[in-house]
Amino acid sequence: MVKIQFDVLGIGNAMLDVIVHADDAFLSDNDLIKGAMSLIDADTAQALYAKSGPAVECSGGSAGNTISCLASLGSKAAYVGKVYNDQLGHAFIHDVRSLGVHFETALAIDGPPTATCLVIVTPDAERTMQTFLGACIGLGPDDIVEADVAASAVTYMEGYLWDPEDAKAAFLKAADIAHKAGRDVSLSLSDPFCVDRHRDEFTDLVTNHVDILFANEDEIMSLYQVDNFDDALQIVRGQCKIAALTRGDKGSVIVHGDEIHIVDAEPVSKVLDTTGAGDAYAAGFLHGYTAGKDLPTSARIGGICAAEVISHLGARAQANLKDLAAEKLGA
Amino acid sequence: MVKIQFDVLGIGNAMLDVIVHADDAFLSDNDLIKGAMSLIDADTAQALYAKSGPAVECSGGSAGNTISCLASLGSKAAYVGKVYNDQLGHAFIHDVRSLGVHFETALAIDGPPTATCLVIVTPDAERTMQTFLGACIGLGPDDIVEADVAASAVTYMEGYLWDPEDAKAAFLKAADIAHKAGRDVSLSLSDPFCVDRHRDEFTDLVTNHVDILFANEDEIMSLYQVDNFDDALQIVRGQCKIAALTRGDKGSVIVHGDEIHIVDAEPVSKVLDTTGAGDAYAAGFLHGYTAGKDLPTSARIGGICAAEVISHLGARAQANLKDLAAEKLGA
Repeated sequence: MVKIQFDVLGIGNAMLDVIVHADDAFLSDNDLIKGAMSLIDADTAQALYAKSGPAVECSGGSAGNTISCLASLGSKAAYVGKVYNDQLGHAFIHDVRSLGVHFETALAIDGPPTATCLVIVTPDAERTMQTFLGACIGLGPDDIVEADVAASAVTYMEGYLWDPEDAKAAFLKAADIAHKAGRDVSLSLSDPFCVDRHRDEFTDLVTNHVDILFANEDEIMSLYQVDNFDDALQIVRGQCKIAALTRGDKGSVIVHGDEIHIVDAEPVSKVLDTTGAGDAYAAGFLHGYTAGKDLPTSARIGGICAAEVISHLGARAQANLKDLAAEKLGA
Repeated sequence: MVKIQFDVLGIGNAMLDVIVHADDAFLSDNDLIKGAMSLIDADTAQALYAKSGPAVECSGGSAGNTISCLASLGSKAAYVGKVYNDQLGHAFIHDVRSLGVHFETALAIDGPPTATCLVIVTPDAERTMQTFLGACIGLGPDDIVEADVAASAVTYMEGYLWDPEDAKAAFLKAADIAHKAGRDVSLSLSDPFCVDRHRDEFTDLVTNHVDILFANEDEIMSLYQVDNFDDALQIVRGQCKIAALTRGDKGSVIVHGDEIHIVDAEPVSKVLDTTGAGDAYAAGFLHGYTAGKDLPTSARIGGICAAEVISHLGARAQANLKDLAAEKLGA
């Protein structure tokens, strides 16, 4: 068996977040669906940006956020994602590598520029995301390095990978390699609208390819088209080894065969921007899981990471998560 | 006489801030002078960036920050600065224009890329800045639009303009136009090391070209090479119409002929990043001054803006400064 080199290898749409503040009127004036991630083309992205206020840019992408949090927690992490050979692409690569994340995906040298996500944060700390996939459409099976996947305890992928055309083939290739090497495959459902776009494929994935599923309440209810959380919980049991279901300030529920663990949310003094809460939760959970912690403790670390990320602007941790988790778990 | 179109026109080195967290050991390991702005070349910038942690990018530049704060306060503002036709350049232009700032400086289409400033924030909230001037070296007298300067109540310039070769000629051209039109010329001394680099020229400027001077304690003492603040205060009296001298948490002192006003600092619950404090103070002061407020009130608005900017990461305001100032002044 190949030696474990990485605790988690993440595969996702690599992008820069362009974070702006706006009020609810801006969303309605521009027909934006609050709280959702919508896909837009280059012209729409440009037009919406021109109408937006001053921005702050930082690396984002769902799985990219998770992998960065994992590295900040001290896990050995790797990332696969496609950026263009431009200033934003180099900024993305800098940010993951500077945390010690293994990143070797070839840069795109033709086609569209590095992907951006316009993250519109409203005064209630909710975020509405408008994504221009850009260079992400170039991610495909050739970008999956068999040795890296086989050497990763968990291969983690975001549901958003179903949006660009060729990335799902990359996902399936990676899942196949991981399982042949006896590793776990993990999926985040990303967002309820993403689930809407790809429901049948996601249901099949969860049943046949996924060991550890991450979803929030809305996503898991959307997946199984039920209108209450308990029904979704009953359906997902037995579909995959572990389901970690997050419920915002109600904490999370971990389903593992007949075991169900209910874990409270970490208290937060002021929620400033909910972007990346789910990504950070997945990071904390997988950090605990790959370190051999029990499921409630893993969920608790997930909650600690999510609480850090929502207490400031931007989806990536500003605190040293390793120290933070040690302090909170020690208390 | 030309009609006033802008309360303040700012001229400065246009750049993106690349903000990273680091400890004091990082500064000493890389021979960086804590709290200072140092100029570095492209290779050094690249090497230092590669050694730095994950970054957040946002528009910066001393006068750029001031002008953005002024626009956020509701002043009519214009800005002159040189960026390259690249992703960072377009981000800079977006950020100033999105606040309603008049910006028409031609983009550089050859030469180095848009300037960046690596801002290293240490746990004590102090910032150490490493600037790659990039496209700023292309700013020159041709970029000064006579009609805009003549139509601005105050033309505001940063001392850092003395660093690139041709910008000082732009400064002097603008000062000359402003005075011929009966307007005020304002200068920020930028930082004590910048004063060291250009002391003789700055002394001459203050005496012969500047109506409103902004400086902090260290800068004004460096300018006149004295070792206490009171001596500097006595020298600067009569050198220019108004000197607004900032003293960190001790507030500010306004010198206007025989009048001296001492104004307390605004309380801040937690200082996170002192980058841009002086820039924001100048914005608040000039907002009050051009609106016909008295000097202590203008200084108070300066303090309110500085307090907002140091309470979060990044040099530009995140709150609506107009509302904030109205609330604080009303209280």
